[in-house]
Amino acid sequence: MNLTASVLAGDRLAIARLMTQVENATKEGLAELEGLFQYTGKAHIIGVTGAPGVGKSSLVNHLARYFRHPSQEKAPCTVGVIAVDPSSPFTGGAILGDRVRMRDLAGDPGVFIRSMATRGSLGGLANTTAGLIQILDAAGYQLIFVETVGAGQTEVDIARLAHTTLVVESPGLGDDIQAIKAGILEIADILVLNKADHPGAEIAESALRNALQFAPVTQHNSYHHGEKPKNQKKIEISVNEISWTIPILRTVASDGKGIAEVAAQIECHRDYLITTGEWTKRDQIRLQSELESLLQSSLMQRWRNSVSETSYQEVLNQLINREISTTQAVNLLIDGGFSQ
Amino acid sequence: MNLTASVLAGDRLAIARLMTQVENATKEGLAELEGLFQYTGKAHIIGVTGAPGVGKSSLVNHLARYFRHPSQEKAPCTVGVIAVDPSSPFTGGAILGDRVRMRDLAGDPGVFIRSMATRGSLGGLANTTAGLIQILDAAGYQLIFVETVGAGQTEVDIARLAHTTLVVESPGLGDDIQAIKAGILEIADILVLNKADHPGAEIAESALRNALQFAPVTQHNSYHHGEKPKNQKKIEISVNEISWTIPILRTVASDGKGIAEVAAQIECHRDYLITTGEWTKRDQIRLQSELESLLQSSLMQRWRNSVSETSYQEVLNQLINREISTTQAVNLLIDGGFSQ
Repeated sequence: MNLTASVLAGDRLAIARLMTQVENATKEGLAELEGLFQYTGKAHIIGVTGAPGVGKSSLVNHLARYFRHPSQEKAPCTVGVIAVDPSSPFTGGAILGDRVRMRDLAGDPGVFIRSMATRGSLGGLANTTAGLIQILDAAGYQLIFVETVGAGQTEVDIARLAHTTLVVESPGLGDDIQAIKAGILEIADILVLNKADHPGAEIAESALRNALQFAPVTQHNSYHHGEKPKNQKKIEISVNEISWTIPILRTVASDGKGIAEVAAQIECHRDYLITTGEWTKRDQIRLQSELESLLQSSLMQRWRNSVSETSYQEVLNQLINREISTTQAVNLLIDGGFSQ
Repeated sequence: MNLTASVLAGDRLAIARLMTQVENATKEGLAELEGLFQYTGKAHIIGVTGAPGVGKSSLVNHLARYFRHPSQEKAPCTVGVIAVDPSSPFTGGAILGDRVRMRDLAGDPGVFIRSMATRGSLGGLANTTAGLIQILDAAGYQLIFVETVGAGQTEVDIARLAHTTLVVESPGLGDDIQAIKAGILEIADILVLNKADHPGAEIAESALRNALQFAPVTQHNSYHHGEKPKNQKKIEISVNEISWTIPILRTVASDGKGIAEVAAQIECHRDYLITTGEWTKRDQIRLQSELESLLQSSLMQRWRNSVSETSYQEVLNQLINREISTTQAVNLLIDGGFSQ
């Protein structure tokens, strides 16, 4: 059985092996990924982002456990977790003695956890993450959590690729709301105020509510689900259209408080996405973004193959001596007869 | 007088105006930048990075003030500050009622502070930052501090563009060293342990020393300057070569403690860079990286102009329907007769 067939059959070793190949951007790995592509598009991808220390990993851990053992008479879902967060204990925290809180998920064949090296990713961080998502999707995992730290543009770009984005905040010192500072409030479908038992939860929640009210709503319609909180952004796109109101949910992930409500909102958001056609739309945006990213690197690669090292070095030297500007250098390299 | 001449003459309004044009990636702005390029390459660019809350802005503020009013019989330097850190009070914290701690620098004609919108930067964050640095460099600012939050790849890439990189840490809860978790220790030329009056400073410092000892040294030689701390990484590249040992300095930026020592190390690192030829080498690496980045966007732009919207949409639809893979789509779009 080849690697593709093994991955499709859910063979964990095959999945892990292919993931490593994709991380290393090997030719074989990328070819296998090609073969898997037609089997993707089924999983519900959930981005979980927020500043370091707000408890993202703990939240993901509890959500994964919840979806494996739902409290009502629901069927359990299979769950994949990809941690792109360098501060995540999934990723590398264990080196520093972090408690590996997801230990209770290990051994469950319905859960696959993968942490990514965030630096030196050969295919680019976003590309590699997209690849890992595709593998888990093709292997049949129904829910895929992608944990990123919401501080850099790359991480936010990754979070944007999800169907549903959870932005996690925790009560801090003073009235600093990290999610607002980092500009990631606008990508939230669901806001989670974790560590809600800490002092300042009330202040943090009202700051979030205020911020939501004034945040520019670019990609979300509002959607009623149950009770509508006061002071919350609601934009009706058309009278007939179903709309989504971003909920703010309190959790204490360390002891599982509020997890069921977050899980319920994730399912509610999924229903909203499917009902409104937003699911397909987000899928298209994700694929287009992957396409453009690959186009860019392919064009660069093709150009690189067409230019001799000597010509390149010659232009680079002129640039370094400030004889030509960067734009002039680019024009020379593309049009100047160096490129065939 | 045109904009370029005004910027070269140090006209603050002209500098600010050109910066806005570069941020918006206007044609005029980029053309002006072209004209300024030959006047650049003189400034000492200092990256300051670290997790949110370690006190980077406060440190930069005090360093700027120090270089404006040096304690010894040195001439004051002109100082530029570019804040790319979304959590920086330079950038947007003021909205949240952060004390604008750099207020005492305002009104000093030898200081220019610019904060950047980190999201929606039209030319890309790294490109735009490089542009702003060039403007301040051409305008004659001698020291340019670039403050970034050390959590995302983009931010680390920006920090890497500096001649000298300060990685700032503060004593935290437990033995978590944010700089290690985020993988930014390896880019440090100088390590600053800020908030050294907080509990845990001793533990944090020894954790940093240990980490330095085991960190892969890829780009630094070691260099003796004064007392050599124990347990510190030192790699001699050759017997004759001067080497650099990464110092760990304690500061309490809020009341200026330790600032003079950090300033002295910045000057010491500058001397080291010039003596060893490392200054020129880093300059070349920066220019090459800018060149590659511009090449990439130019190639993409040229390709985009060569393909019709209809052809592109046709391929995109096949991709969305999972009839072809992303790689097949790219091959079709570049070679498939759509591109002329």
